[in-house]
Amino acid sequence: MSFTFDPRDPVALTQALIRCPSVTPEEGGALHLLAEILQARGFETHLVSFSDEDTPDVANLYAHVGPAHRPALMFAGHTDVVPPGDEARWSRGPFSGDIVNGELYGRGAVDMKGGVAASVSASLRHLEEHPDDPIAFLITGDEEGPAINGTVKLLDWAVAKGDRIGHCVLGEPTNPAKLGDMVKIGRRGSLSGTITVYGKQGHVAYPHLATNPVPQMVRLLAGLMADELDHGSAHFDASNLEVVSIDVGNKATNVIPGEARAIFNIRFNDHWNREKLEVWVRGKLDGAAGNDIVYALEFGRSSSEAFFTPPGAFVDAVVSSIEAETGRKPALSTSGGTSDARFIKNICPVVEFGLVGKTMHQTDERVAIIDLESLARIFQRILGQYFS
Amino acid sequence: MSFTFDPRDPVALTQALIRCPSVTPEEGGALHLLAEILQARGFETHLVSFSDEDTPDVANLYAHVGPAHRPALMFAGHTDVVPPGDEARWSRGPFSGDIVNGELYGRGAVDMKGGVAASVSASLRHLEEHPDDPIAFLITGDEEGPAINGTVKLLDWAVAKGDRIGHCVLGEPTNPAKLGDMVKIGRRGSLSGTITVYGKQGHVAYPHLATNPVPQMVRLLAGLMADELDHGSAHFDASNLEVVSIDVGNKATNVIPGEARAIFNIRFNDHWNREKLEVWVRGKLDGAAGNDIVYALEFGRSSSEAFFTPPGAFVDAVVSSIEAETGRKPALSTSGGTSDARFIKNICPVVEFGLVGKTMHQTDERVAIIDLESLARIFQRILGQYFS
Ligand SMILES: [Zn+2]
Ligand SMILES: [Zn+2]
Repeated sequence: MSFTFDPRDPVALTQALIRCPSVTPEEGGALHLLAEILQARGFETHLVSFSDEDTPDVANLYAHVGPAHRPALMFAGHTDVVPPGDEARWSRGPFSGDIVNGELYGRGAVDMKGGVAASVSASLRHLEEHPDDPIAFLITGDEEGPAINGTVKLLDWAVAKGDRIGHCVLGEPTNPAKLGDMVKIGRRGSLSGTITVYGKQGHVAYPHLATNPVPQMVRLLAGLMADELDHGSAHFDASNLEVVSIDVGNKATNVIPGEARAIFNIRFNDHWNREKLEVWVRGKLDGAAGNDIVYALEFGRSSSEAFFTPPGAFVDAVVSSIEAETGRKPALSTSGGTSDARFIKNICPVVEFGLVGKTMHQTDERVAIIDLESLARIFQRILGQYFS
Repeated sequence: MSFTFDPRDPVALTQALIRCPSVTPEEGGALHLLAEILQARGFETHLVSFSDEDTPDVANLYAHVGPAHRPALMFAGHTDVVPPGDEARWSRGPFSGDIVNGELYGRGAVDMKGGVAASVSASLRHLEEHPDDPIAFLITGDEEGPAINGTVKLLDWAVAKGDRIGHCVLGEPTNPAKLGDMVKIGRRGSLSGTITVYGKQGHVAYPHLATNPVPQMVRLLAGLMADELDHGSAHFDASNLEVVSIDVGNKATNVIPGEARAIFNIRFNDHWNREKLEVWVRGKLDGAAGNDIVYALEFGRSSSEAFFTPPGAFVDAVVSSIEAETGRKPALSTSGGTSDARFIKNICPVVEFGLVGKTMHQTDERVAIIDLESLARIFQRILGQYFS
């Protein structure tokens, strides 16, 4: 593969990336294209493929330029995209990269090939004036899928390689409506669990010979949901527990069932961690259970800790770059679902800033040309401030 | 078909009936055999088959002897049986009618071919001395199945025919341990319902954009289950509500579901009827719902009223016959599940008395020979007292 456009132009680069059909787990040529571009500008690039049981192999890209002993600014992101759905409902082909009325169409335009392109363009421009500054890229092909063969393993791999990483900007779409609305400096953590209540099956006409697990489950859940976890913290919304399912699966109205199951999920802020939450949940359930309810509690394995990068010099550099470019002072938010920042925070402070998310995962996902250019200039400003 | 045994012998008749493989909805020859026996002794017999949508056709037997204008004593019952299950686990063939150590083996031995046989034998003996007494038989082939083409339709048919029916003995197995333990003079009614709570689906990270129906359902059910319906009545246990299932069916821990469903069943005594219960349930749910829970409540169509035959001359005749034969004073009970008595009570007072139910619906269902003979004599005593 070779490219015929100027990769310092984020619009051309976004178009080229969108034309790579990289629906998870397909690489689609996107990571190879980025590797080629970065390699041509002096980056050391590594296309690394990971495998695991029951999941497809996935390609990932790590690239680094500059002295390894100086802390690099790292841009993180992903080139894999969710499926386009019914292509007939798109006004432009989901892999066309067509530009109509100043908007670039295609799956990944905002989530997040556009963000990746802006960070690459910005870096190339920055390196023209400051060729010795250390910059790294951590681009995965498994963010929208099982996320087993992506960021987690690539981070381990990069840490083992030994480059110093100072801080990270993750270019996920963070702005609800306009570029410059919002920087994410944290995300709540997530913990799921399953409660199973064991009763004794029987006939409704003889309730004294049975133990109905349904009222017991109602009692446990009422206890679990009775109190708020907290009322929020300086930078976070309140932690929140949702019981997302209760299931018994009994269709016979004359039968008292033997078992009931409930699933809950907690989104938690920096007051908590997994360990404290597990104790809290078990305490609530034990309190409600008394001596007569027999239940089992199992926590999900894929839970994730909260991440939080407190305001300070790094966040200031990001904010002032956004303000200088857009005239908007972005909110410092910790709202929304989880992101790969939950893994990156283990190796360096990370903030998230990218495009406007409105059309992400939807038909006619698209990005304003002007936003792509602004985002590239914002990233260039961040690089400038970071190394000044 | 013709028979070579003496039908005044309830043991021989039970054996012959067990050898008819009448698993619902199969007639298996059982009703034809009874019709032949009764017809030979002067009964007017009617084999009536009923049909309905989505259910198999089922044969039923109505027989009557004596003057139509005098109130008959009617014996009710069924010849259909539940499937034998794994035949290899039976010590004797489930349709063998083998006698081992004084016990007669086979599906239906106690539920309730033995009971039917005892009532037929008793009637034939009674008619030898009192040929003018009016006796009727209402024997269905659809008690263990959907019960659509059985007792309900046969009762309508019999009422239309115009014979007067004074009282009814339903020969279901009523004795927990020994013949003479228990007469059922009533049964609680049954009412089922489904509650659906309508929330608004969303993402667990944005709970303020969603309405989780699960905590709302927990609140409704806690309200519904908070109070007892009653504390029983003179002849009945307390009414009882059981929530038998809750189902959401959401497997995604990051999704707040849009809907939750619960199913409940109420067994109710003579303090209540369906109408009063519907008002009670709706009141409890509305009270718990307040203004912010949107729910639907639907009651099941197959609900049944309680039946109750107050102690008095008819019950006394049954009790004293049992006492004279067994030396045991039977308890007057209204416990247990529903029975066809809930339909029969609409045309005449009914009590239930039959064999010992311990082995019913189980492998190696069997009846003591001595019990079959005692039950026939009890029924004969009841006939004698009823017409004296
Ligand atoms: Zn994304
Ligand atoms: Zn039965």
